[in-house]
Amino acid sequence: MRFFIQRDRLVQSVQDVMKAVTSRTTIPILTGIKVVATEDGVTLTGSDSDISIESFLPKEEDGNEIVEIHQTGGVVLQAKFFSEIVKKLPSDTVEIEVGNHFQTVIRSGQTEFNLNGLDHEEYPHLPQIIEENVFKIPTDLLKAMIRQTVFAVSTSETRPILTGVNWKIENGELSCIATDSHRLAMRKAPVEITDGVTYNVVIPGKSLNELSKILDDTQEPVEIVITENQILFKTKHLLFFSRLLEGSYPDTTRLIPTDGKTDIHLNTKEFLQAIDRASLLAREGKNNVVKLSTLENGMIEISSNSPEIGKVVEHVTSESIEGEELKISFSAKYMMDALKAIEGPEISIRFTGAMRPFIIRPIDNDSILQLILPVRTY
Amino acid sequence: MRFFIQRDRLVQSVQDVMKAVTSRTTIPILTGIKVVATEDGVTLTGSDSDISIESFLPKEEDGNEIVEIHQTGGVVLQAKFFSEIVKKLPSDTVEIEVGNHFQTVIRSGQTEFNLNGLDHEEYPHLPQIIEENVFKIPTDLLKAMIRQTVFAVSTSETRPILTGVNWKIENGELSCIATDSHRLAMRKAPVEITDGVTYNVVIPGKSLNELSKILDDTQEPVEIVITENQILFKTKHLLFFSRLLEGSYPDTTRLIPTDGKTDIHLNTKEFLQAIDRASLLAREGKNNVVKLSTLENGMIEISSNSPEIGKVVEHVTSESIEGEELKISFSAKYMMDALKAIEGPEISIRFTGAMRPFIIRPIDNDSILQLILPVRTY
Repeated sequence: MRFFIQRDRLVQSVQDVMKAVTSRTTIPILTGIKVVATEDGVTLTGSDSDISIESFLPKEEDGNEIVEIHQTGGVVLQAKFFSEIVKKLPSDTVEIEVGNHFQTVIRSGQTEFNLNGLDHEEYPHLPQIIEENVFKIPTDLLKAMIRQTVFAVSTSETRPILTGVNWKIENGELSCIATDSHRLAMRKAPVEITDGVTYNVVIPGKSLNELSKILDDTQEPVEIVITENQILFKTKHLLFFSRLLEGSYPDTTRLIPTDGKTDIHLNTKEFLQAIDRASLLAREGKNNVVKLSTLENGMIEISSNSPEIGKVVEHVTSESIEGEELKISFSAKYMMDALKAIEGPEISIRFTGAMRPFIIRPIDNDSILQLILPVRTY
Repeated sequence: MRFFIQRDRLVQSVQDVMKAVTSRTTIPILTGIKVVATEDGVTLTGSDSDISIESFLPKEEDGNEIVEIHQTGGVVLQAKFFSEIVKKLPSDTVEIEVGNHFQTVIRSGQTEFNLNGLDHEEYPHLPQIIEENVFKIPTDLLKAMIRQTVFAVSTSETRPILTGVNWKIENGELSCIATDSHRLAMRKAPVEITDGVTYNVVIPGKSLNELSKILDDTQEPVEIVITENQILFKTKHLLFFSRLLEGSYPDTTRLIPTDGKTDIHLNTKEFLQAIDRASLLAREGKNNVVKLSTLENGMIEISSNSPEIGKVVEHVTSESIEGEELKISFSAKYMMDALKAIEGPEISIRFTGAMRPFIIRPIDNDSILQLILPVRTY
């Protein structure tokens, strides 16, 4: 194998596939990045066997030469060194040449690295995916849907299925749901998909976090393919594979209360800042719990008390309070996570009593829902 | 005590004195910040008993009211909470009021914090310093002198005196020297001081690092006072006290070679980048060692070899090479530290053979000197 490549494009591709590489793997070759040169261009692959990322650098793009192939072939290079080296090379062009025993020479300007490579034929094969029922989501919408749900997955392995986000597609609508059984986040959006096709899968939260990092903020569509145990996200030059979690996701619809006894409308930012301040002292106590009480004249009070340190009382003027008076306690962290996930300047919180889960939504928008279970303190 | 204060000025002062506060102290009251209000303004103090920082907020500055004192007095507040709270307060003005048993109320907008405070009379007193022989250094020069020497102090407590920077003042010149016995950094500059006054003290490296963080990048003079066991740095509103290290600093003058056998002039940036790349593989080996060899035609070669990973060879075109041929090995980290400390686009390295310390200096500037001991590998 021997080719010349534009350094900046190589650096970007290496950074992308590095997102899948971990040093904590039981399969030594997976600490490397697979580099394969064909007549069409160069493909880089990184994998931790749960997530695999493939980046393709074509010979030419928009009339600019990106890669000049002199000899096809492949090699696996230690990801840690390869990624550090390419970032620091002095010239705009990089030459990579593989010799006997996968000895690889990287040349740029007056710099020459010799790295011990491994046989690319020994690198595990990526899942073979038949592209049926491909559907599309704009990149920025996909990133928003991930951001608004993935934070609520469970971090405990007690119920592994809850470490993933449940993706359901029905009637041309995708709904993403995550819960750690103390709170729940849901986001819906329409998708372009063949009539009658339905899916119900669970994607590891970690995979979605990594995917989100390598997606840019364009409106270009991401193509998505779901198989029995894999999901594939395709962008212009990237393939992102993730395994799916096995098992069935709990039915969460009955968790979500349909009635309501107290309805409060609040300015999102003011309320978030008040909760943030109240949590400064709450963090030291158990569970980071704050109390919310309705007062007269449309005011609410947020408070927290840590006997050793002190207490804090916040007053927030609501846009409106309807229904019964209320005193309720909840995790400040869960509330801040939920408020940060919600888009829009104003929110509605619907309570069904101090012991029942409550719902936070943006005003006039049913596509996002955040649910929190209260903490018993009163 | 009761006063109103501009939030932004309070936040800045709290951040400054926080630099001296550590949670790892054996004196519990030192985890707090002392707040004292007099008729003239408010003084904040933080200390870890090695370093103490005092920040004064005057009632008025440039015609703007900063503090409005309603009742004088004092309190000590938990630094961790106090600093987090002031940063997040909602209004531009903050009211602080101390009641019975040092219960302290912090009010801002619709927010009210109650913190358990401690008696400020129990807070340790700052060192009393008689201001004799005050000398002055512009702030930006002081920061440069610290930056160019402090990185070379020893991090090992085997010889505690080497964890400090030696400051010598003689004939109106300040020279700062740091060494960990493998390398040495020196910087000199003239200072305004009374004729005939001399000093020879050792300032803990940690103190200089913290001082550097709270100094801004102005040319305003910093006033410095040295006593038997303390040094005091005074800026417009800050007092920074540090204890001095006990014991005498080794005489380093005889370490610095006066002769030279090989003189190389190099572009600082090109050479630094070549060393940086060569160190990518060297880091994995012992000591992070790279080799430098002079070649023909004014070229030098930097190389490094880690059998398990690979090797790297860099060629750098020098501005000039004079004297004997040379092959020498040294720590890439020490070389990078030295090159980053040196100002100026071009450097001179003077070698006295492969086993002798060598000297790096900017061209035509005797005020900075970096010395490195080679590593025996040839």
